[in-house]
Amino acid sequence: MRRVCFVLQVKRDRLVEYRIRHRAVWPEMLAALSRHGWRNYSLFLRDDGLLVGYCETPDFSQAVAGMQDEEVNARWQREMGGFFESLPGAAADTSMRPLEEVFHLE
Amino acid sequence: MRRVCFVLQVKRDRLVEYRIRHRAVWPEMLAALSRHGWRNYSLFLRDDGLLVGYCETPDFSQAVAGMQDEEVNARWQREMGGFFESLPGAAADTSMRPLEEVFHLE
Repeated sequence: MRRVCFVLQVKRDRLVEYRIRHRAVWPEMLAALSRHGWRNYSLFLRDDGLLVGYCETPDFSQAVAGMQDEEVNARWQREMGGFFESLPGAAADTSMRPLEEVFHLE
Repeated sequence: MRRVCFVLQVKRDRLVEYRIRHRAVWPEMLAALSRHGWRNYSLFLRDDGLLVGYCETPDFSQAVAGMQDEEVNARWQREMGGFFESLPGAAADTSMRPLEEVFHLE
């Protein structure tokens, strides 16, 4: 398992809605994430919109790539796209750039 | 176990040294962290100095408080203090403000 952390920026005027949407992620979306190896996956939000993602997965590139074939992910990413400040990738999930892990304690 | 995420800012001109120091955290420091409930603890660093911490612990306030009585932590925090941009707390460890977890998938 690799530990992966990434950072995105949610628009400040959409923080409330972002929180609400993530309390009720579609069950089909959760099932797809699990199927493609997203484990112990959390999203943390700071008041200014800084969003931190953390997950554990055998291979993060494959975890992202696997989701690209899931119709439910295409729908989810389409709905989520408007919540973020400019994304380097086509959608939020393809814009997740892993940060370097510089320390770990089991 | 609670999942905790916090963010700090490392000075850009000290990133290399910060990385090197964290490859060789003192064994006594690691033992103290474990003793006070810091589990699955990672630090991730972005090129601009954004530092993300993630850990799992029964009670984060107690995990931080317990370290305050450890002499090795006082020494470690003294040496680390200069690596960070202005800290809201007295030291890096007392400046870790947990972000809100808005999503989790096991």
